[in-house]
Amino acid sequence: MLFERIESEGLAHYSYIIGEGTEAVVIDPRRDCGIYVDKAKRAGARIALILETHRNEDYVVGSVELASRTGAEIWHTEPELEYGYGRLARDGQVWKFGRLSLQAIHTPGHTPGSMSYLLKTPQGDPWILFSGDTLFAGDVGRVDLPGLDRMEEMAGLLHESLFERIIPLGDDVIVCPAHGAGSVCGSVIQDRPWTTIGIERRLNPKIQHRNREDFIRDVARELERPPYFRMMEKLNLEGPPVLGSLPVPDPVQAGDFAERAGSGLTLDVRSDLAFGAAHVPGSLFIWRSGLPSYAGWFLSYAKPVFLITPGGPPEVVPDLVRLGFDNVAGYLAGGMLAWHMAGKESRAVSMLTVQELCRQLDAKMDRWILDVRSEEELDSDGRIPDAHHIHITLLPGRLGEIPKDCTVYIFCGSGLRSMTAASLLARAGWKDIAVVLGGLAGWTSRTCPLKVTGS
Amino acid sequence: MLFERIESEGLAHYSYIIGEGTEAVVIDPRRDCGIYVDKAKRAGARIALILETHRNEDYVVGSVELASRTGAEIWHTEPELEYGYGRLARDGQVWKFGRLSLQAIHTPGHTPGSMSYLLKTPQGDPWILFSGDTLFAGDVGRVDLPGLDRMEEMAGLLHESLFERIIPLGDDVIVCPAHGAGSVCGSVIQDRPWTTIGIERRLNPKIQHRNREDFIRDVARELERPPYFRMMEKLNLEGPPVLGSLPVPDPVQAGDFAERAGSGLTLDVRSDLAFGAAHVPGSLFIWRSGLPSYAGWFLSYAKPVFLITPGGPPEVVPDLVRLGFDNVAGYLAGGMLAWHMAGKESRAVSMLTVQELCRQLDAKMDRWILDVRSEEELDSDGRIPDAHHIHITLLPGRLGEIPKDCTVYIFCGSGLRSMTAASLLARAGWKDIAVVLGGLAGWTSRTCPLKVTGS
Amino acid sequence: MLFERIESEGLAHYSYIIGEGTEAVVIDPRRDCGIYVDKAKRAGARIALILETHRNEDYVVGSVELASRTGAEIWHTEPELEYGYGRLARDGQVWKFGRLSLQAIHTPGHTPGSMSYLLKTPQGDPWILFSGDTLFAGDVGRVDLPGLDRMEEMAGLLHESLFERIIPLGDDVIVCPAHGAGSVCGSVIQDRPWTTIGIERRLNPKIQHRNREDFIRDVARELERPPYFRMMEKLNLEGPPVLGSLPVPDPVQAGDFAERAGSGLTLDVRSDLAFGAAHVPGSLFIWRSGLPSYAGWFLSYAKPVFLITPGGPPEVVPDLVRLGFDNVAGYLAGGMLAWHMAGKESRAVSMLTVQELCRQLDAKMDRWILDVRSEEELDSDGRIPDAHHIHITLLPGRLGEIPKDCTVYIFCGSGLRSMTAASLLARAGWKDIAVVLGGLAGWTSRTCPLKVTGS
Amino acid sequence: MLFERIESEGLAHYSYIIGEGTEAVVIDPRRDCGIYVDKAKRAGARIALILETHRNEDYVVGSVELASRTGAEIWHTEPELEYGYGRLARDGQVWKFGRLSLQAIHTPGHTPGSMSYLLKTPQGDPWILFSGDTLFAGDVGRVDLPGLDRMEEMAGLLHESLFERIIPLGDDVIVCPAHGAGSVCGSVIQDRPWTTIGIERRLNPKIQHRNREDFIRDVARELERPPYFRMMEKLNLEGPPVLGSLPVPDPVQAGDFAERAGSGLTLDVRSDLAFGAAHVPGSLFIWRSGLPSYAGWFLSYAKPVFLITPGGPPEVVPDLVRLGFDNVAGYLAGGMLAWHMAGKESRAVSMLTVQELCRQLDAKMDRWILDVRSEEELDSDGRIPDAHHIHITLLPGRLGEIPKDCTVYIFCGSGLRSMTAASLLARAGWKDIAVVLGGLAGWTSRTCPLKVTGS
Repeated sequence: MLFERIESEGLAHYSYIIGEGTEAVVIDPRRDCGIYVDKAKRAGARIALILETHRNEDYVVGSVELASRTGAEIWHTEPELEYGYGRLARDGQVWKFGRLSLQAIHTPGHTPGSMSYLLKTPQGDPWILFSGDTLFAGDVGRVDLPGLDRMEEMAGLLHESLFERIIPLGDDVIVCPAHGAGSVCGSVIQDRPWTTIGIERRLNPKIQHRNREDFIRDVARELERPPYFRMMEKLNLEGPPVLGSLPVPDPVQAGDFAERAGSGLTLDVRSDLAFGAAHVPGSLFIWRSGLPSYAGWFLSYAKPVFLITPGGPPEVVPDLVRLGFDNVAGYLAGGMLAWHMAGKESRAVSMLTVQELCRQLDAKMDRWILDVRSEEELDSDGRIPDAHHIHITLLPGRLGEIPKDCTVYIFCGSGLRSMTAASLLARAGWKDIAVVLGGLAGWTSRTCPLKVTGS
Repeated sequence: MLFERIESEGLAHYSYIIGEGTEAVVIDPRRDCGIYVDKAKRAGARIALILETHRNEDYVVGSVELASRTGAEIWHTEPELEYGYGRLARDGQVWKFGRLSLQAIHTPGHTPGSMSYLLKTPQGDPWILFSGDTLFAGDVGRVDLPGLDRMEEMAGLLHESLFERIIPLGDDVIVCPAHGAGSVCGSVIQDRPWTTIGIERRLNPKIQHRNREDFIRDVARELERPPYFRMMEKLNLEGPPVLGSLPVPDPVQAGDFAERAGSGLTLDVRSDLAFGAAHVPGSLFIWRSGLPSYAGWFLSYAKPVFLITPGGPPEVVPDLVRLGFDNVAGYLAGGMLAWHMAGKESRAVSMLTVQELCRQLDAKMDRWILDVRSEEELDSDGRIPDAHHIHITLLPGRLGEIPKDCTVYIFCGSGLRSMTAASLLARAGWKDIAVVLGGLAGWTSRTCPLKVTGS
Repeated sequence: MLFERIESEGLAHYSYIIGEGTEAVVIDPRRDCGIYVDKAKRAGARIALILETHRNEDYVVGSVELASRTGAEIWHTEPELEYGYGRLARDGQVWKFGRLSLQAIHTPGHTPGSMSYLLKTPQGDPWILFSGDTLFAGDVGRVDLPGLDRMEEMAGLLHESLFERIIPLGDDVIVCPAHGAGSVCGSVIQDRPWTTIGIERRLNPKIQHRNREDFIRDVARELERPPYFRMMEKLNLEGPPVLGSLPVPDPVQAGDFAERAGSGLTLDVRSDLAFGAAHVPGSLFIWRSGLPSYAGWFLSYAKPVFLITPGGPPEVVPDLVRLGFDNVAGYLAGGMLAWHMAGKESRAVSMLTVQELCRQLDAKMDRWILDVRSEEELDSDGRIPDAHHIHITLLPGRLGEIPKDCTVYIFCGSGLRSMTAASLLARAGWKDIAVVLGGLAGWTSRTCPLKVTGS
Repeated sequence: MLFERIESEGLAHYSYIIGEGTEAVVIDPRRDCGIYVDKAKRAGARIALILETHRNEDYVVGSVELASRTGAEIWHTEPELEYGYGRLARDGQVWKFGRLSLQAIHTPGHTPGSMSYLLKTPQGDPWILFSGDTLFAGDVGRVDLPGLDRMEEMAGLLHESLFERIIPLGDDVIVCPAHGAGSVCGSVIQDRPWTTIGIERRLNPKIQHRNREDFIRDVARELERPPYFRMMEKLNLEGPPVLGSLPVPDPVQAGDFAERAGSGLTLDVRSDLAFGAAHVPGSLFIWRSGLPSYAGWFLSYAKPVFLITPGGPPEVVPDLVRLGFDNVAGYLAGGMLAWHMAGKESRAVSMLTVQELCRQLDAKMDRWILDVRSEEELDSDGRIPDAHHIHITLLPGRLGEIPKDCTVYIFCGSGLRSMTAASLLARAGWKDIAVVLGGLAGWTSRTCPLKVTGS
C-alpha cells in the first residue's frame, strides 16, 4: 500500500497520496506536482483521482496541473460555485481503488461545501479521516471566510460537522488534516504530526465545548485575511494556468539590475542580519521560511518579482509559485557581493541587541517603540509598556501613525518580522529605524528597565 | 566557467553546455532537457543560446523544448531547408558570452549546412572545436544521407572541411564531437572520450588519406538508414511537439493487458534470457541498452507502445521520447510474474549454449543457421560456414527466405540481437527457432565442428 | 518535530527516529544507519539515544554501528542476558528530549524483556506507542523463541502485556510496531501502515479473545525458526562488528569466476525467468525481494558470497548486511551475457505455464508434484491433490523424499519459491525438474484436471 | 571507458578516476572518498590502483582512506621520504588495466619525486598526461617547498621535466593537472578546464622561456606557505587516520554554546554581511568558499572547532576534513537568531560602501587604511595611496603595526578578506574598524578622492 503525506514547508500544507494495486488518489495536491507523479510511478500506480477537501484560499491547488500530466479525474466540493474544471463530489460518494475505498463526508463550516474523506480498510472499517480544514491537531477551521454575515451560520455548521459527523466515527480513527503547525489557516495548530479523533477529543481546546452556543462564541471570530486570498479563490475556482515546469528566473548582472528590476518589486530573501547590514535600496525583506506566510501580504500579482538571494540562484521559486506568483523574473547575479564590487550603493538598517537597547533607552528620550506582533501574541506573551502596536500585516495602511523625527525601535517576537517592517518603513522614506535583535524573546531573557506586562 | 558534456547513453549522443558569467550556450540539446536547465541554474547562468551543428537524423533535437523553458535563441544550419523555428547561422558568425566566444565554421559533408563551432579562449585563441557529426574520435561523418546522387559531392565537401578548415586549426585544439562510441552515426567511433585534432590526425584511419580521391573512395559509401530517420528529419525541421514533462505510461493489470495493448505494439525490454524463458505472445524484444539503436527500426509512430519491464515502472521512456516515440501508453503491472499468476499463457524461445549447439549440430541434419550480424562484423570477426546472413535490420523484409520446416539457429555477436530476431520470427509465425547464447563471441571461445572463416 | 518511520523493505522492518529541539532518539536502528544520521542532521538534532524494543532475532540491530558514529547512548532490554554493549532499560524509565518524553513499558511475551516505549505529548498525554514485536497491525508477537518449554509462560505474559498494559492506554493511542506486512516475525501482519490501539481492538484477530486461556491456546504455537536466527541472537547480544561503510564486492570476469567463487557460494538474484533460462551451474537462486526472508535459510556465514546480478553491480549488499552476511566478496562482471560470450557452459530449468502443465499432466504418467508452500498457505489457499508437500525451508533436510527418476513439477504460490527449490534440487543433482509459472495463483485462474481442494 | 575528473571546489583540487573493463585507477584521491567508490561501482569496476603524483602539501590525500575501503594498491613518489603506507613508483613503471595503460614519467621540480602519469590509448599512443603539480593551465608548480636552499635546483629540474620530458610528448596530448583556477598551488592558474600540451605551449606564460636561466629566474620564487602545510606533509607521509565516515558535529543550544565552545575556536562561515551585522564575540570569520584557502592559516589543529552557520547544520565538514581538521565538534543550533532570542550579546563590525567612504574620507582626518591584498594583487590591480599593506595571511604576526586609536578602514579585493581581517582584529581587541564593502573592485568603479596607482 502507498500512503504518504507530502508537506509543503512554510505553508505547512499537507497533501496525501494513497494507493493500492495500480491506482492512486491524491488529496489536495500542490502545484509543483512532480512529487506525486514520481511516488505513484515508483509504487507502480497511476494517479486516477484527485480529491479537493474544499476550495482553498491560502495556496493555489495543483489539481489542474496534476490532471494535465496524469489524466486523473478531479473532484471538488462547493455546490455554490461555478468551477472551471472538475466535477462536484457529493456527500456519501464512494471511490474504490484496489481493496480500499474513500467516502465523502460533508463537513461544512470552514466553507459551505467542505468535504472530509474517510479511508476505509479492506474490511470496510473506518480508518483514516482526511479532514481538510475542518479539524486540525489542536484547532478547527476558521469560519469567517465565507463572509462575516455567515460567520455564525458557518460556526453552527462546523459544530454539527465535528460533533455529529466526525467524532461519532470513533476515537481510534486517525486524523489527517490539510495543515500542520505554522499554517495561516489555524493560529494554534499544534506540532502533532499524527493524531486521532480521540487525541483531539482529549487535547484540542476547541472541541472541549460540546455546547453549541459556547462553541459558536469561541470560533465565530474574524481573523486576518491576506489580500492574496482573493487571487487564490479566483485561481482555485477557474483553474490556474498549467505551468509544465517551474519558471526559471534570469541571473541579472549588478550593472543591469536597477533598470531590469525598476518595473517590478525587489524581494530580498537573505538572512535578516545580512539585509540589515546592506541591501539594494527600495527592496522588501522577507526571510525565506516566512515567505509562504508573508509574500501574500506584501507582493503584488501585477509586478514581476526580482530576488536578492545569498548569492546563488533562488530556491524560493516553488514557494512563490504555490501562491500564484508565477512571474519571478530574475535575481541579482552574485548577490550583494557583486553589487558592492560593481560600486553600487546600498542601504543599511540599524540593529541592536537587547543589551544595547537597555543602554540606549536609559540615555535617550526621543524614541518610539513599534511592536509589530499580532494581538494573539500580545495576549499570550505580554505587552511592552509605551510601545505602539501595529500588526505587521496592517503596517502598509497605518504608516501615517509612525513618526519620522525620532528613532523608531521595532520589536517582534524574534527580530525577523521587525526587519520586514523596517524594509517597509525604509521603502516609504523612514530613515531613523532600529531593529531589536532577538525581539521579545531576547528581551524577556534579560532584566532591563523596559518591562513586559501581562504575559 | 561551466563546461559539461551531457551524454545520452545508448544513443551515445553528446551535447554540451558551456557558460561564462551569467550566460550559457547549449550545443545540440536532447529533448529531455531539464538537465541543462539545472546545470545552468546551479552555475548562476541563463541559457541564452542553442546551437545546432546540423539537422539531426538520429534523434529528436531538444532545441524547441529547451527554448520553451528558457527563452533561448535557437540557431540552425541548413540554408537549403525551411525550418519551422529558429534562425540560420552563417559561416564565421561569432557569439560572445562572458569573456568567451564561439565562432561558426561551415564544415559541410555530413549535411550541406553542417557547422562546427570553435570555442576561443578569453585571449581569442582556438581552444575547443564542437565538431558535430563532421569529425568523431576515430571516424568521420557519413555522407550518404543527403542522397546517393550527392554522395560523392558530399564526400568532397567533407574532405575540404576536414583538411582545409579543421586540421589547420592546430593539433592542440580539443575536439568535442556530437557522438561517442556506440552511435549509429559512425560505425567505428572509438571509445576515446577526449581527443584533439592531433590525436585524430595520428589515429583516425579516415583522415590518413590526404589525397582527395582516396578519401572520397573511402567514405562515399551507402550505410544503413533506419526508417525512423525520416521522422527525425521531419521533426527536426518543423520542430517537435513541446512535452513539458515526460509521458507517464499507465500500469495495466494482466487481466486488461491483452485488450489495452491490442491496438498497439508490445515491446519487451527485459533481459534476453527472461524474454526467452517466457514472454507475452506477439511481443517484440529489444534489450534495454539496445533500444536507442533498434527501436527506430522496429517500432512504428502510428501505434501506441505497451511495455513489458522487469516488473516495475518503465525506465526507458526518455530513450523512446528521444526518438520521437511519445506515445508510450502503458506497461504490464507486476511484469511477467503477474501475467503468470493471472493464469495467462506465455511463449518461450529455445536457447542453447555453444556446448549444446556442438552436440546438436553433430546429431542433427535439418538445420538452418541464420546470422543476423552486419556486413562489417562478418568482415572483421569472420563468417560461419553454411550460415545464411540477413542483417537484423533487414529481417522484416526478408522473412520469406527463412524456412519454417526445420530448426532455425540464430547467431549474432553476443546473443542479444538474436533474441530480437527470434521475437520478429515468432511474431511472424515461426515456431522452431533457437537462439545461440553468447553468439559468435561464445562460439569462438570454443573448439567445435562449426568453424569460423575469414576472421 | 522530527518523526519518521524508516522501512527496510523485504524485512518489512520499521525503525523510527523522533526528535525535538536538538535531540533525537532512534528506536531499533538498522545496521546501514547513514539514513538516521542524515535525517537528524537535516533536522538540526543529534542522535542522543538509541532504544531497542527487544533482543532481535531476525536482523542485526544497528545500535552499535549508529553509536560509533554519533556517540548516542544505547538502551537494551533483556535482564536475563549479558550484553556486550549498552545499558539495561527498566520498566517505567523516562527519557526526556526537548518538550517530549518516552516512557518504557515492560511488555514481555515475545521475549522476557520486551519493552514498548510510549511517546507522550508536551502536556504529558499518551500519544504514540512503539510496540516492538509485541503488537503488530493484525497480529501479535510470536512466543516460541525463548524456548518451547517457556512458550505457554510467554503467551501468558503477552496476554498481560496486551490487556493490562497496552490496551488500557486508550483506543486513541497510535501504535508503531517494529514490523509491517511481509515480515517473518508475524505471518498475518496486515498491510495497515498506520494504526491505533482502538483499530487493533476492532480488527486484530489475536486480541479478540479477552479470555486468557483462549489467547494462550491461540498464540502458543511453534513457528519456523530460520537457522540464521541463532547468529542474529549472538550478534545482537555481543554487538556486531562496526562496518564504517558497506562492503564493496569485486567485479569478477567470467574467465576467473569459477575459480574465485569456488570457495564460496554463488547466489543468483536475477529474475526467476532469467535464472530458469540459463544460470551458472551450482548457483542458488533467490529473487531479489525474497532475499531478506530466504537468505537466512540457505546461505552460510562460513563462506563468502558471490553474486549473479542482471549485469550491473549488486544492489543487494544492504539486504545481506542487515542479516549479518558481511562477506559479499564478488559478482560476475557483465552478468550472464559475459558468461556466455566467454563460452562458458550454463544450465537451465524447465518452466511451464499452467496451460502447458494441463497438457502434460493429461499425457504423462511418471510425474511427481512438489508443493513447497507453507502449512498456513495450504490451509488458506487449498491443497493440490496428489502433491507432495515439503515447505521450501525444510527442503534441504528432506531431499531424500524426492524421486530422481521422473519429472518433478514444483509448485508454490507464484513460481518464485519454486525456482529457489529448483536451484536447491539442481545443486543436489536432480535433472528432471520443472517449475510451474504462476504457481497456485496461476493454476486457480484456470480450469484443469488438477483440482485444488479445501481452499 | 570510465573517465571522470572529480573537483573539490574551493581547493580547486582535481582528482581523476579512469577505468577500463573491471579495473579502475584513482589519481590523487581526496579524503572523503565515497565518490570514487560509487563511480567505480556504477561502472562495474573495482578500484585496483591509487597513484599519487607527489607528496601533497595543501590537502590530506585520501589514499589510505580509499584503500581501506577497496583494497587498492597505493603508489607514492618520493624516494627521499619514509612513507607509512604504500609503495614507491619508479620512473617508467607501467600499470595496465583493461586495454589501457598508465606510465610513470618522473617530472621533478615541484617536489624531488613528482611523477606525471601518461595514459596511453589501446594502440599504445600518448593520450592524456596527468601532470600533478608540475604543469597547470597557465602556470607551473611552485619550487620553493623542498626548501629555499634547493629552490634553484628544483627550478632547474622543473625546466628539464617540462622541456625534455613533457613537451616532447606532443602538442596534441591532453593535460590533466591536479589543480584548477583558484588553487593555492598556483596563483595564476587559468580557468581553462581542459587543455593540451600545445595550448599550454601557446598560452602558458611560464613556458614561453625555453632558456633555462630565464626560466629559473622566473619560477624560483618563494611563495607563501600556510602553517597547515606542515601538518599536511606529516599526514601525507605517515598516512592520516581512517575516518570511515565524516564527523557529525553536535548542535549546541545558545545557552550552552559559550561553555562548550570556550575550549575551542568559534568559526563563523556565514556571509560577510551577516557576520558584520552581528556575531558571537570572539569568533573568527571565513566565508564559506574561502575556507579551503584560509582555514589552514587561521585554524589550529590543537583545538576543536565550533561553527556558526546560517542556521542549519554545517555543510563545510568535508572542506575542513580535507585539510585535516577532523575535530569539528559542534555548531550553534538555530544560528544567530537563536543566539539573540536567548538574549545573548553579539558584536558588530562597521561596514561602509565606497560612496560612504568617499564622504568619510573627505571629513575625517584620523584614519588608517589597511590593505590586506597580496603583493601580486597590488602589482596587477594597483595600490591605494596612503594605505598600509599587510597581506591577510601575515596579519596575526603583524598586529603591532596597526593603531588602536583611530578608525582602521580595511580593504581587500571584494570585501570578503577584509571581514576576515576585521574578525582577527576584533578578537585581538580592536574596536574602531570598518570594512569597505566591494573592496578595490567597488572602489575602482567610482570616482573618488582616493586614487589607485599603478594598475
